[in-house]
This record gives sequence, structure tokens and C-alpha cells, in this order.
Amino acid sequence: MRIALCQLNYKVGDLDGNYSKILKAYNQAVADKADLVLFSELALCGYPPQDLLDYPHFIDKCYQTLVALAKNTGETAMIVGCPMQSELKHGKKLFNSAVVISNGKIEQVFSKTLLPNYNIFDEYRYFEPNDVFNVWEFNGLKIAITICEDLWDLDDPTLYKTSPMSQLIQLGPDLLINISGSPFSYKHIENRRELMRINAQKYNLSLFYVNQVGANTDIIFDGGSMFITNEGVIAEECEYFEEDFKVIEWQPNKEYTSHSHNYKNDDIALIYNALKLGLTDYFSKSDFATATIGLSGGLDSAVVTALIAEAIGVENIFPLLLPSKFSSNHSIDDSIQLCKNLNLSYDIIPIQDAVNTFETILRPLFKGTKSGVAEENLQARTRGNILMALSNKFGHILLNTTNKSEAAVGYGTLYGDMCGGISVLGDVYKTQVYKLAEYINRNGEIIPKNILIKPPSAELSHGQLDSDSLPDYNVLDAILYQYIENQLGPKEIIDLGFDSKLVFKIINMVDRNEYKRIQMPPILRVSDKAFGIGRKMPVVGKIN
Amino acid sequence: MRIALCQLNYKVGDLDGNYSKILKAYNQAVADKADLVLFSELALCGYPPQDLLDYPHFIDKCYQTLVALAKNTGETAMIVGCPMQSELKHGKKLFNSAVVISNGKIEQVFSKTLLPNYNIFDEYRYFEPNDVFNVWEFNGLKIAITICEDLWDLDDPTLYKTSPMSQLIQLGPDLLINISGSPFSYKHIENRRELMRINAQKYNLSLFYVNQVGANTDIIFDGGSMFITNEGVIAEECEYFEEDFKVIEWQPNKEYTSHSHNYKNDDIALIYNALKLGLTDYFSKSDFATATIGLSGGLDSAVVTALIAEAIGVENIFPLLLPSKFSSNHSIDDSIQLCKNLNLSYDIIPIQDAVNTFETILRPLFKGTKSGVAEENLQARTRGNILMALSNKFGHILLNTTNKSEAAVGYGTLYGDMCGGISVLGDVYKTQVYKLAEYINRNGEIIPKNILIKPPSAELSHGQLDSDSLPDYNVLDAILYQYIENQLGPKEIIDLGFDSKLVFKIINMVDRNEYKRIQMPPILRVSDKAFGIGRKMPVVGKIN
Repeated sequence: MRIALCQLNYKVGDLDGNYSKILKAYNQAVADKADLVLFSELALCGYPPQDLLDYPHFIDKCYQTLVALAKNTGETAMIVGCPMQSELKHGKKLFNSAVVISNGKIEQVFSKTLLPNYNIFDEYRYFEPNDVFNVWEFNGLKIAITICEDLWDLDDPTLYKTSPMSQLIQLGPDLLINISGSPFSYKHIENRRELMRINAQKYNLSLFYVNQVGANTDIIFDGGSMFITNEGVIAEECEYFEEDFKVIEWQPNKEYTSHSHNYKNDDIALIYNALKLGLTDYFSKSDFATATIGLSGGLDSAVVTALIAEAIGVENIFPLLLPSKFSSNHSIDDSIQLCKNLNLSYDIIPIQDAVNTFETILRPLFKGTKSGVAEENLQARTRGNILMALSNKFGHILLNTTNKSEAAVGYGTLYGDMCGGISVLGDVYKTQVYKLAEYINRNGEIIPKNILIKPPSAELSHGQLDSDSLPDYNVLDAILYQYIENQLGPKEIIDLGFDSKLVFKIINMVDRNEYKRIQMPPILRVSDKAFGIGRKMPVVGKIN
Repeated sequence: MRIALCQLNYKVGDLDGNYSKILKAYNQAVADKADLVLFSELALCGYPPQDLLDYPHFIDKCYQTLVALAKNTGETAMIVGCPMQSELKHGKKLFNSAVVISNGKIEQVFSKTLLPNYNIFDEYRYFEPNDVFNVWEFNGLKIAITICEDLWDLDDPTLYKTSPMSQLIQLGPDLLINISGSPFSYKHIENRRELMRINAQKYNLSLFYVNQVGANTDIIFDGGSMFITNEGVIAEECEYFEEDFKVIEWQPNKEYTSHSHNYKNDDIALIYNALKLGLTDYFSKSDFATATIGLSGGLDSAVVTALIAEAIGVENIFPLLLPSKFSSNHSIDDSIQLCKNLNLSYDIIPIQDAVNTFETILRPLFKGTKSGVAEENLQARTRGNILMALSNKFGHILLNTTNKSEAAVGYGTLYGDMCGGISVLGDVYKTQVYKLAEYINRNGEIIPKNILIKPPSAELSHGQLDSDSLPDYNVLDAILYQYIENQLGPKEIIDLGFDSKLVFKIINMVDRNEYKRIQMPPILRVSDKAFGIGRKMPVVGKIN
């Protein structure tokens, strides 16, 4: 039997566009003499469709598109992910389904049992869990069809009371399929490969696993679809971070050798590729072609500029240098050098006149007060205004350059440097941003060396350094990681050997800056726990 | 038997504060010779605790606080809501529980079966549904204890496959209790009263219903705890929008007359009270005392000012008038009149110098372009900067004045008039804002009449009116309501009699402005479908 893995990049809600992509890949698979063609979870509507699923007219349109797709099928069967209306009297109105279509019609529907509802997932918001277990009989074989999380209950204890595979295995399947919408995180790829290998071995079944690729706003999907033998050998693996298509000649008892894709199992390279894909898709899927960014001479804006240059091309980038009286010469020189290295044109708009005007205007109200955060933020917001003016005038997307360490402790100005359509580094700790810069420079200097070695500074007052108000980034990031990713409490973090006063200080900074983060742009997610939709903390409340 | 309904205002996460409140009310109930004292759902941690529940140290602290509370109880029993660790091998780690404590210890735990996971609710993110049904035996009575949604499955078909009451009723209970965290919406009070009455009648049981009151960030709880007889008579009803405490002498066969609270069943009065409570609690629970606001001379800022004056007192409000060259005289006069009516001091800061400086600075980049949205937004952002400078300097919270109609169609400037710590009117359509203004003026002019009768304008260019780019607000709001609250698609809305071109235009505006709304401050929720955590739409995606 010939089975095609179609790893495509879907746009959420774009039923016509997704339909065309799916049909094209199906037709190619037919031409390649495939018997069965696999597409990923909710491929037809793109994953995650979010509250589009609450709209009955959208569900109708999904079904009509599915029927139209079915009309284009012949003997070669297709399995495609689609939301399907429940016909049960009770329970939620939808299932997250894998629909088998062939010979012009919908043949059979299999639905997801384990609905993830943690972190960025909220599938129980929309779907009823399936509790009817069948195999699909095709070409004399019994095929077990599962959807993503259905194979993720190998932990003991598990989050779920039902195990779909322990039901399905009793029906004696010959083959296991999993259609998936499994998002990227830099720790997730290796977990996913391992978990799928264990499934194949545990159930002694060949496993065809197909994932989606591409970003939908902040959530990035890395692909990595696989064919794994019943011995747990990854015999075929699709590319990461790009569309791919593979037809596999499968015979039950054939021996396969490992052909797993030689992807770079390196956190920083993975993050780099994920962010690049996230940016490319943010622009292409929102029909914006050009970007603007404020170059501060610091690390974050330099890394974002290098990334966006890779993603959409230097000709589409319109950076601004926005020096104030506190900007050091090296900030300007370093930014200019960055642009030269990237072959990027730029403009310089000194902001001091605008800042002075604000200070004059505000003098009557500020009389008798000491210059401080309000004055510092005025500079950042003046820059924000100018960048947004450019964005509004020419239709550029402003890129946000806030990194995860800053976002965590609130070291940034709301409506100032926290502006932007998309946050590129909001899920990348400062220590990781340094490594990203080194990675970007792996084949020669793109980010000027001086940016890498000078001490970080917001340059909002004379001689200001990040280290004036923050601990060393190595320490800061280590504490943040324990608090945010590992969800440890202050006592547990102190028990790891960190200074007690510092731990409380940092955790309190994280807690009380939720009000800023909640107004941040969507953050490209690369870690297991990003700020944004996957971390919902009270804005007003007492957290620790 | 004497039963106390304790309707308290909890702060999310503030275990010590909530503990003290609960204990004080319990002691008062003991002094009042109560046998049983009821507190609301998740009272100990406040509702909704969100991802605090993901932190094991927080769950431990909840348990320790519960144990400490138990130590303070005697013969009078208490039922209090608290997250409780599951002891099951599989499933989520927590239950949403009603814990019975008395005589110094935890006596019995009852947990929630129906976990709402739609709109603003995401309880399945944290909790395992209960599937073990028991009654609590107390003073010779069998008491059925349910939690909020457990009584909300009267629809046919229902969202759920299990019905807790159809299980519990088989155990022959004598009395029904429901502890609840049921948020306000202006349509919800009457639904809730009716539904609880139907439950009491259907199961022929007296029902003691206790809700929380007060706002946690954007979610407002209105209280309205009740004692309903088995014949469906509301025999006692707590106040709305404030803490309340009632001890009820209950006898199984006693006749009770209706004593339901004579609350104003009027949408606008309800919204007014809810917003006032939302504001009061936003300030008190976040430990901020003072507010600033930009007075445009328009309706929205006037209504917000009147509301905040009621909520935190005029002495704590520092409004700014920020006229530009496009501001009409009446804008300034009307704002001054508003301040006079409220006995409110204000400052005037003309923004034109700053706008001119920006235009000068930007001239080289904008050369050859026509003045338009970029220039208009510069004015709004200049105002935003000044207001935020005041906020940063003096620790005032900036109030956002965007209304729901504007938020829906993106008629507002990101980082300009969309700034603020909390959005007061973001869930109130413009047509409702007019009615709010009339309500505010019910005992005499607070909002100057001219503000109510002049045509709405953002005054960002000469002679600009909202009606230049938007349809009449009556039509706009009616279409928005069908799309947002009723989740109809374009064809269904057109079928209601609206102009086809207009419907598509408006829906497209709603869809493509998700990128602005996602960066809005938290929005006080007063409707069944507010922007914010209850409506998760793709930012990048094709929606219609």
C-alpha cells in the first residue's frame, strides 16, 4: 500500500485556500499512485481555529468545503481533519474529526477522544470527546485512526481517564495513523519523536504521523511528519519548518532502515528557524509585505532585524534610528554597521525635539517633581509614536523587540518599546537572545561584535545600565525559568540555591507586571510556556 | 435549622485576606446561632483564580488556609469553595470543591461535575469533573451540595452528558445547596433567578444559593444570593453589587412568602452599577487610589468620568483636557462644564506644539504623501503620551474610554485613545453609552446636554464626524450585536433585513481589527459576549 504524508501550511479560516492546497496535494499523490493520502488535524480550517468554531455559519462552510473536496476524490482515499457536527442529543455540538473521503463521498468519520485543555490548548471549549471506538477497514486492513493528543497519554498517571489506544488495540488493527496539530517548542520535537516511537513499539504497529507546518499568528507548527515502523524505527521523516510531501510504499512485514531527517537538535537553531517561519507567515497570511523597526543599537533590535531580513527580505524593511540625548555614539554606529552588514537602508530621526516639547508642555504639571520613570518613558513613547506613524503612513508592520526577560519583569515601556504588531523575542530569554545573535553570526558578522559585548542599556537616562535595576541576566533568566516554565513557588526556587531576597523581588516583578504583558502584541511561541494565550494570570490579584 | 448566606467580595489569590473575611462572617453567623454557614464557589482563593491553579505551591497554600479555617470552626458547619487535590490515579489533578468543615476539621468534600468551558470559563483547564454522587448528612437531613454549573443543565439538549441532579435526587435529599461563582451580565440576573426557581420546583427542594460579589479585573460578580422554597418562591434575596449576609430560619414544611429583593430589572441601571463596582474593585484590589482620564468633550469620556467619580470620589480624579487645532470650542466648554457639574478640578494641556514637532520631525519621511490616518493618529498618540506621563509621574491609573462599537470596528488609535489600565466602556455599545449618560443625569445634569446632542466626532481632522466613516450607531450596533453576541454569519444578518454591502463592510472591519483589540486593556464585562478573554478570534486568519 502506498501512503502519502502531506505536510502543508494552512491559514486559519481560509477554507478556500486550504481546500486548494489539499486538493493539489491529493492530486499529486494520486499521480504518484498513492492508495491513501493523509492530511493533518483540522487541516481544512487550519489549526487553531479558535472561536470561529462557535459560529454555525463557519461550521456549515467547513462541511460544504469537505463535501466539495469529497466530490474530487476517486479510489485513492483521503483522511483529512475537519470539525464535524455532533449528532448526539447531549454534549458539545462538535467533534474534532478525521474524515475518510473517497469515491466522491464522505466514507467514515473518526473523532478525537483526548482533548487537550491546558497551556495554549482549549479544545474542550469546542469539542465533545469521542467515546466510540472503531477501526477503518481499507484494502483488507484494519486501520486505527487517532488524532494528536489521542497518542499522548503514555504518562503514568495520565491526565485522562480514557485511553483511546487501549480500546482500539482490542480491535486488532494492522496499522496506526495519527493526524496532528502539534505546535513547536524547542523542547518538543525530541519529545514528540520519542513518544511516537514508543507508541509504535508499545502497540506493535507501523505509525503514520502527519503534522501541520507554519505559523498562525503566534503559534508555530514545525511539521516533522513521520513514518515509524512497528519496531519504533523512524523510517521516513518530513522536513521541519517547511511544507513537505512523501509517498511511502508500505508493506506490513517489510524491514525498513532509519531514514530520519537529520534536523539540528540544537535549541538555538530550532528557535531561529521557528521565529523565521513565524515572521514569514505573519506577514504572508496577513497580507502585509513590509516591516519597520526601531534600531536602538542594542542586541534585541539587532537580532529582530536579522531575523526579519531572512524572513521577508531586506528590501521590505524600513528601520529607523531614533537617537535621543542619552543615546551613545556607539548606539548609532552599531546600528549603522548592522544595516551595512545586512545591506539595509535606514533613516535617522532624532527624537530630542519631540521629547523637549513634551517636557515643556508637561512642565506646569510636573513642577517640583524629580525626573524619573515618567521622563524616561516619554522617550520610549516618542519613539513608539514615530514608528507607528511610519507604520500607519506606509502600511509597514512595526516589529516588537521586547525579550522574554524584559516582558517578565516589566522592564519596558507600555506604548513605547512594547509597541508592535508581533513580538518576535517575547518568548526568548535575554541569555538566549545572545546565543541567537551568535547563531546569526555563524557564517560571518551580521550583528556587530560591539553589540554583543557592550553592557545592555535602555539609554533612557545618563549612563543607565540594565544591571542598575536587574541582576545579571544569567541569574535572572534562571529564576524566571523556574517560575514561568517550571511553575515553582518562591520557596522551591530558593531551595535550588538562589538568594531569597532576589527570588522574591523578581517574582514580585513578574506578578505585578501582568498589566503590561496583557497589552503586548501576540508573541511568537517557541518555549513550552510563553506569555500570551498559554499563560492566563490574574491582572488584579495577589499572586504570591 | 438556621442557615447563613455569606455573600462576600473576594480578591483572587489573596488567601490571607479571603480567610479573614470568611472567618469574620462565620463568627458572625455563629453569634447569630446559625447551624450552617455557606460561602461561594472557590471563595478561599477567589474566582476566577486562572493559572494560579497550575502552581503546586499555591494549591498547597489553599489547603493550609483551609485547614487553618477548619481549626476555627465549632459545631456550626461551614461549606466553603476551595480547589482540592485529586487522589485519583488518572485525570486532572484538581477538583473544584465545596468543602464541609466543622468541629475543627475537614468533614467531607463534594466536587463539581459540570465544568463550564465556554465564553469566559475555562474550568476544564484545571479541574477533573466529579462523578461520585453523595448527599451530606447533617442534623438528620440529607443535603445535596452542588456547585454553580451543576444546576445549569436544564436545557434540552444540554452541553453535558451527565446530570448531577438526576443522580443526587435518587439519594432522596431534603435540601439543595448551590455555591456559585456566577458572573454578571445585564441579561444574566433574570436568567439565573428563573433557572434557580425552576431547579427548586423541578426537584421539589428548598434551594440555598450563594454567589460571590465584586470584580476581579474584568469579570464582575453581582451577588444576588437566594433562598428559594421548594415551590420556587424566592423567599430571601441578597443585595446586588454589594456584600450581604443573611441568616435564614429554615423549616422543611414552613410556608414562606416572596421577599425577593426589589432590584431594578433595567439593563442600563444594571450596567451602571456593575461598571461602578468594577471600577471600585479594580482600584481597591490593585492598591491604586487615583485616576486620570483625557476629556475630549465627547460622550464616552464624560460617561467614564461620571462613573469613576461615583466609584472612587472626585478628589481622586485628575482629568486632562488635551485640545488640538481641530478641537472645537464646544469640546473644551463641554468638558469644563462636566467638571463643574462634578465639582472636579482639571488641567488643560494643548497638544498642538507636540503634534507640530512630530510633523516637523517626520516631514522628510512623509514628503509627497497626503495627510491622513498617520497624522490623525499622531494626535491621539500625543494625548496618550501625555496621559501616560501623568500616570507614571503620579501613580494614577489611566482610564480607557473606548466603547464597544469603536472597539468592534477598530475606530480608535492603538497606543492613542486605546491606552489605559482598564477599559470601562469596551463592552458597552455606543447606543448604550447614550442611555448610560441619560441614567447618570436621572437626578439632574451631570453630563452636559450639549455632549448628548452634538454629533459624535473624534476631532482628528477638520469637521470630521463619526458618521463620515461609520453608519448610524443604531444600525451599526444592531449589526454588531447580531455578529458578536448572537454569532450570526453575514448571510443570516442580511436575512434580518440589513443592507448586504453594509453588513459585509462592518463584519470585515470587526474581523480585521482583532490585532487592535488584542492589545486593549482588560474590558469590564457587562454583556454575554465581551471582547477579551471570552472571545478568542484569530488575529491572522481569514474569518469571513
